[in-house]
Amino acid sequence: MTGGVEINEPRHDVQRVAVLGAGSWGTTFAKVLADAGRKVQLWARRPDVAASITERHRNPDYLSDVELPPTLTASADPVEVLDGADAVVFAVPSQSLRANLDKWRPLLPDGVTLVSLAKGVELGSLKRMSEVIGEVAGVGPERLAVVSGPNLAGEIAHEEPTATVIACPDHERAVQLQTACSTDYFKAYTNTDVVGSELGGAGKNVIALAVGVAAGMGLGDNSRASLITRGLAEMSRLGVALGASPLTFAGLAGMGDLVATCSSPLSRNRTFGEHLGRGSTLAEAEEANHGQVAEGVKSCVSICELGARHGVELPITDAVRRVCHEEMSAAAMAKELISRAPKPE
Amino acid sequence: MTGGVEINEPRHDVQRVAVLGAGSWGTTFAKVLADAGRKVQLWARRPDVAASITERHRNPDYLSDVELPPTLTASADPVEVLDGADAVVFAVPSQSLRANLDKWRPLLPDGVTLVSLAKGVELGSLKRMSEVIGEVAGVGPERLAVVSGPNLAGEIAHEEPTATVIACPDHERAVQLQTACSTDYFKAYTNTDVVGSELGGAGKNVIALAVGVAAGMGLGDNSRASLITRGLAEMSRLGVALGASPLTFAGLAGMGDLVATCSSPLSRNRTFGEHLGRGSTLAEAEEANHGQVAEGVKSCVSICELGARHGVELPITDAVRRVCHEEMSAAAMAKELISRAPKPE
Repeated sequence: MTGGVEINEPRHDVQRVAVLGAGSWGTTFAKVLADAGRKVQLWARRPDVAASITERHRNPDYLSDVELPPTLTASADPVEVLDGADAVVFAVPSQSLRANLDKWRPLLPDGVTLVSLAKGVELGSLKRMSEVIGEVAGVGPERLAVVSGPNLAGEIAHEEPTATVIACPDHERAVQLQTACSTDYFKAYTNTDVVGSELGGAGKNVIALAVGVAAGMGLGDNSRASLITRGLAEMSRLGVALGASPLTFAGLAGMGDLVATCSSPLSRNRTFGEHLGRGSTLAEAEEANHGQVAEGVKSCVSICELGARHGVELPITDAVRRVCHEEMSAAAMAKELISRAPKPE
Repeated sequence: MTGGVEINEPRHDVQRVAVLGAGSWGTTFAKVLADAGRKVQLWARRPDVAASITERHRNPDYLSDVELPPTLTASADPVEVLDGADAVVFAVPSQSLRANLDKWRPLLPDGVTLVSLAKGVELGSLKRMSEVIGEVAGVGPERLAVVSGPNLAGEIAHEEPTATVIACPDHERAVQLQTACSTDYFKAYTNTDVVGSELGGAGKNVIALAVGVAAGMGLGDNSRASLITRGLAEMSRLGVALGASPLTFAGLAGMGDLVATCSSPLSRNRTFGEHLGRGSTLAEAEEANHGQVAEGVKSCVSICELGARHGVELPITDAVRRVCHEEMSAAAMAKELISRAPKPE
């Protein structure tokens, strides 16, 4: 009986939530929490963005056609945003999470649940985002949660129905977050496997990039489905080596997130890969992507290192790494991935 | 070392192959075998179709833009087609396989491998296609193989690269078939799990129908990815109850086939579901589908019965069954599937 309504007097009822980062997923998740009846404060780097969200209920930079609820307000001042929060949600890009968190650490309220929306593995340290949060904030894994699933922000912002996974080793905290973000268009399932949920989220960006390369080269749905399947298999092997459950990879935070990302023309990683598949250089793909490098371009490096450290072969992730960083051509990548020797599956 | 080139003097070298059924997949698989250097005889129901294939190297009904290899000939006479075959491939619709096989049985050469391309569970008997073949032909499971994977026929006929699974309890026979159908655009992996491979193929038609309904209703990539993920989970639960390996469902014959079918605008089951999702009746969807009922419309009934017999819940398959056969509306189906109570995943 884990449904929200059956919970009486939970240990830490989540009523006020701070969401740090007003990109498309941070803004959307803040809207979900507000629609679920929570008081939400959103941190935006730029004061003009914060003012627009508070006063006009619009984020001018992301999803500007979506009207945000009035119970969602924003500020560029982290002191104001974090004041009185029962839970803190981190929604900044993975490679800048540590630097941001260093500044926010003294402001984090005692005992609250810290929630990561960021998907990636930190370059250099090879830490997952919840590990980075735990290390910088000095809190144990029981207070760290992650949200991961087939969650294309644009669809959720428009209230198209979807489901997600909230993973936390402390089941009670996961249930509180589940209650705090459940709306008629957003269903949360709880899970205790943080490692699997985070690796699913990080790895999918790399596989989506590979699928984009295949699409850009004109390969069809069979090839793409094979890449997605074998991509999930290698993510799953890495996860199991790191202590995750293989079931997480078969669920919404693994397969669900991967299939949504690889299907969507809205996915930045997939779109980035398509440019590469059509013969663009990394710099040209970046330019076409409004100057942003897709998350998978960085994650492929750290995930490959993680694989090497744990003795797990990651042929697709490694091929993406060589296309992005060692000037392997898309054609050579396709040839290599397709021509792997026939063997028992 | 299972690669084809290492095989010396196999027990039953597969040089001549009979393919029974000249629909799009039968025709395409016959082309693959011929491109892999085999002598292939294709059975077509209509003599004019057979003549066109043999004389003009075109199948006028399916994939008529594809030039077939000259080593692929066709006949409407099963005696001619089956004469001297080292392997027999069945590529007729699943619900008509038994009736066809009854006529062909006396003509089957002794000791050959019998291969099913058909995807479905027989209505009434609830048997998988290889079970039907084994029963009618009076041969044991060691001689029965199935081919299943992300294999949209149109793409393969145009030689776009893909992979497949050849499952047979007798690994040596699987390897012989692998060798017989390996080309530079078609990679076969061997597997001994016939049950899982067949249920993957049968179940995916039903899930693709559900995904089509969601797409027809205008639901987005998040919802579709959730349906695909939960659809694979229920197929996998049923498979495990019937003795299959869960790994098969995570592989090309499970997830790979499902993702390809659900992504493709060419999938008949998905297209059929889209009509239903836009509010068409079953009869209207059938008319829009050139008078053909999609395979999943029948399979959902037998798969639900199989689930009931083994005590496995199949919420998506059962919802498809009620939409197709009990006048449940697409909207009611979507509501039911989305509103399942929040719980641990």
